[in-house]
Amino acid sequence: MPRFPALSSASNSLQPAVFTRLLPLMRSLPEPALPLHIGDTWLKPPAAAMLDRVASGRELYPYSSPAGDVGLRSSFCQRWTDLGLQGLDVDRVHVTPGATGAVQAAIRTFAGAGDDVMLLAPFWPLVRGITLSCGANPVQVPFYDRLRAGADVTASLEGALTDQTTTVYLCSPNNPDGTVLTAAQQLEVAQFCQRHDLWLISDEAYCDHAFAPHKHRFIANLPGMAERTASIYTASKSYALAGIRIGFLAGDPGWLERARRVSTHQIYNLPLICQRAAKAAIDEGDAWLAEARDKYAAAADHVHRHLEATFHPAQGGGYVFCDVSAELNGKPTLTWLAELLHEGVSIAPGVAFGAHYDQWVRVCYMSLPVPELAVAIERLNRSLNRLRSGGELVYDGPRLELDLGGS
Amino acid sequence: MPRFPALSSASNSLQPAVFTRLLPLMRSLPEPALPLHIGDTWLKPPAAAMLDRVASGRELYPYSSPAGDVGLRSSFCQRWTDLGLQGLDVDRVHVTPGATGAVQAAIRTFAGAGDDVMLLAPFWPLVRGITLSCGANPVQVPFYDRLRAGADVTASLEGALTDQTTTVYLCSPNNPDGTVLTAAQQLEVAQFCQRHDLWLISDEAYCDHAFAPHKHRFIANLPGMAERTASIYTASKSYALAGIRIGFLAGDPGWLERARRVSTHQIYNLPLICQRAAKAAIDEGDAWLAEARDKYAAAADHVHRHLEATFHPAQGGGYVFCDVSAELNGKPTLTWLAELLHEGVSIAPGVAFGAHYDQWVRVCYMSLPVPELAVAIERLNRSLNRLRSGGELVYDGPRLELDLGGS
Repeated sequence: MPRFPALSSASNSLQPAVFTRLLPLMRSLPEPALPLHIGDTWLKPPAAAMLDRVASGRELYPYSSPAGDVGLRSSFCQRWTDLGLQGLDVDRVHVTPGATGAVQAAIRTFAGAGDDVMLLAPFWPLVRGITLSCGANPVQVPFYDRLRAGADVTASLEGALTDQTTTVYLCSPNNPDGTVLTAAQQLEVAQFCQRHDLWLISDEAYCDHAFAPHKHRFIANLPGMAERTASIYTASKSYALAGIRIGFLAGDPGWLERARRVSTHQIYNLPLICQRAAKAAIDEGDAWLAEARDKYAAAADHVHRHLEATFHPAQGGGYVFCDVSAELNGKPTLTWLAELLHEGVSIAPGVAFGAHYDQWVRVCYMSLPVPELAVAIERLNRSLNRLRSGGELVYDGPRLELDLGGS
Repeated sequence: MPRFPALSSASNSLQPAVFTRLLPLMRSLPEPALPLHIGDTWLKPPAAAMLDRVASGRELYPYSSPAGDVGLRSSFCQRWTDLGLQGLDVDRVHVTPGATGAVQAAIRTFAGAGDDVMLLAPFWPLVRGITLSCGANPVQVPFYDRLRAGADVTASLEGALTDQTTTVYLCSPNNPDGTVLTAAQQLEVAQFCQRHDLWLISDEAYCDHAFAPHKHRFIANLPGMAERTASIYTASKSYALAGIRIGFLAGDPGWLERARRVSTHQIYNLPLICQRAAKAAIDEGDAWLAEARDKYAAAADHVHRHLEATFHPAQGGGYVFCDVSAELNGKPTLTWLAELLHEGVSIAPGVAFGAHYDQWVRVCYMSLPVPELAVAIERLNRSLNRLRSGGELVYDGPRLELDLGGS
């Protein structure tokens, strides 16, 4: 019973989000760095989804349904049904504050104190803190980069299983490394979950951004998976609407009803104006989305051809994830990132995506049009080449702190 | 280690919000009941805060600060400083999804598994589920109605203290019963918290709605309280903006920084458009607010003079809380509420506000203009008078279920 001034163990386990901690250093720069660190897009949202189009009506001001607007849920069901998810209906959907809120509600529903959650790594940074905030233990499993290097899916998963594992967190197309699981790989994940009675959280935030010939498939469609899979989506990445904070949690009503209660006790309901913008994007955004995907694919292609670093090409998503251990040769990654900021480009430190990735960095290709992206990549190449030819880090300004906390 | 299909104990402890469960029955009515059950207002928000006034700009679409827009935080600081809170600045404020998000972040920061949280009752319904969702134990302490009947503050609090108590949840002006603590009562609460090293969560959602001569005072101003008090506010009740979901959590940066992390891992950031509407309301809403307070005071006065039930007059807030045990005389409250719905008026069941209040009901006076409110009160009086003169409940439609779950 630790009282004032002691704090709860859940709150003590958390650190600020990685991008929050980059901010003070970024603000201190003489001129802004080209932003390749965060997953924001340079594109303007679909015209139909602009907030000024949906900003009138008295119904925007009282409380609305904690489950989410039924019209929005219905549009989402139609779209994911069109994309191939089977058996979806409005009672199997809960609207959340972005994918963040959906992952939060799902993990809190499936895991608590003493439970292990397998985070297939490299992973979306917030998922680790979310797991800790639920009192559960994040088990980091090097996965996507190992698969790309030929590792076996089942062996990777079985090797990380514990007696306490209740839940697996999967993301495909993956943030940060752009891996799109094949049908065969997906089946192995599904069979692993069934063999060990595990819940699966399938983060499909980037489902609209798989590049041909790679293809997004719904893992919940596989036999025996519908009842144990939490499928997660967001308007943020598909429609350039990160700022309106609308996401979706979909799955069996048996557990989804519990997740609704978790969410209701965190936020009550979401602003109706934001739900309307998301609905307009889903209803009228197909052509916009096709164009956006082409633009991102062209940007990815530019990075694949020009970035002089060690990475697997993105099969989808919005990023490449680079192993810079050879270039850094023991030099501290965070000092290099601070130096890069002063050279006019910001990228994200790999350690935020998993403890095994301390010598990696994530580069976003959605955040700038290709001409500016090209400038940023040139700056990055110049620094990498200098390091490769034996150059030292010269930066001696304020340090970038990145204690990720927790266990 | 309960795996699929077992769920976490946190999610198992929760039930849907009380108003969510009234909805199916309300929707089945031949015509809508006059709504005195939920704390929505009939007033339109201040003109400056209408969403169509703040809906343009590219900056609405990317991520924004997880701490909240600094302009909004600054406006809030100015306003609460003007109202008398000492020592406030933007680093002592975190913007949350309504008061719900603020209470959630505060309880999760101060309490976890094995901790007791004292809920001074009758209390805002969601706080009990929020406490359970944090793994902590809600200790319900009959309080406000007992004080109004002459009970001693310190004795009431000391009698409910356990070795596991870490936190006290206080609300003044109180939802549901309109009690505004006196300066002397507030001092006793503060001294109790200091004597036992407790955190205090001070829910001040109704701070703008105390009716003269009653006066809202900031408990955080009392000696020794600034560092242990989480002061909570929302745009919902002051400015008729419940639908935009903007609240505030204020206090010492030492713990507030932890609460920010909790919040960031639940929602990341809040929609900037909603934060702008809240800022406009705070900056330009003074005249609107003065008028709204007069209207609510007139509505409260109508209820005080005409509602034929046992209650303490509201000193502020938006509700009266009635003891209907004499009228019900053992009849089930929920059956009566269902019968009332069919007679055209909806009110909230007391049990949602605390286990000791099974034979009580909450009546909102903010939700209708006085002429319609008068019709609703007449309907309520007619039913109460029928019960008092020995009438039985005649309703035999669908039952209202209200298992509140948890311990």
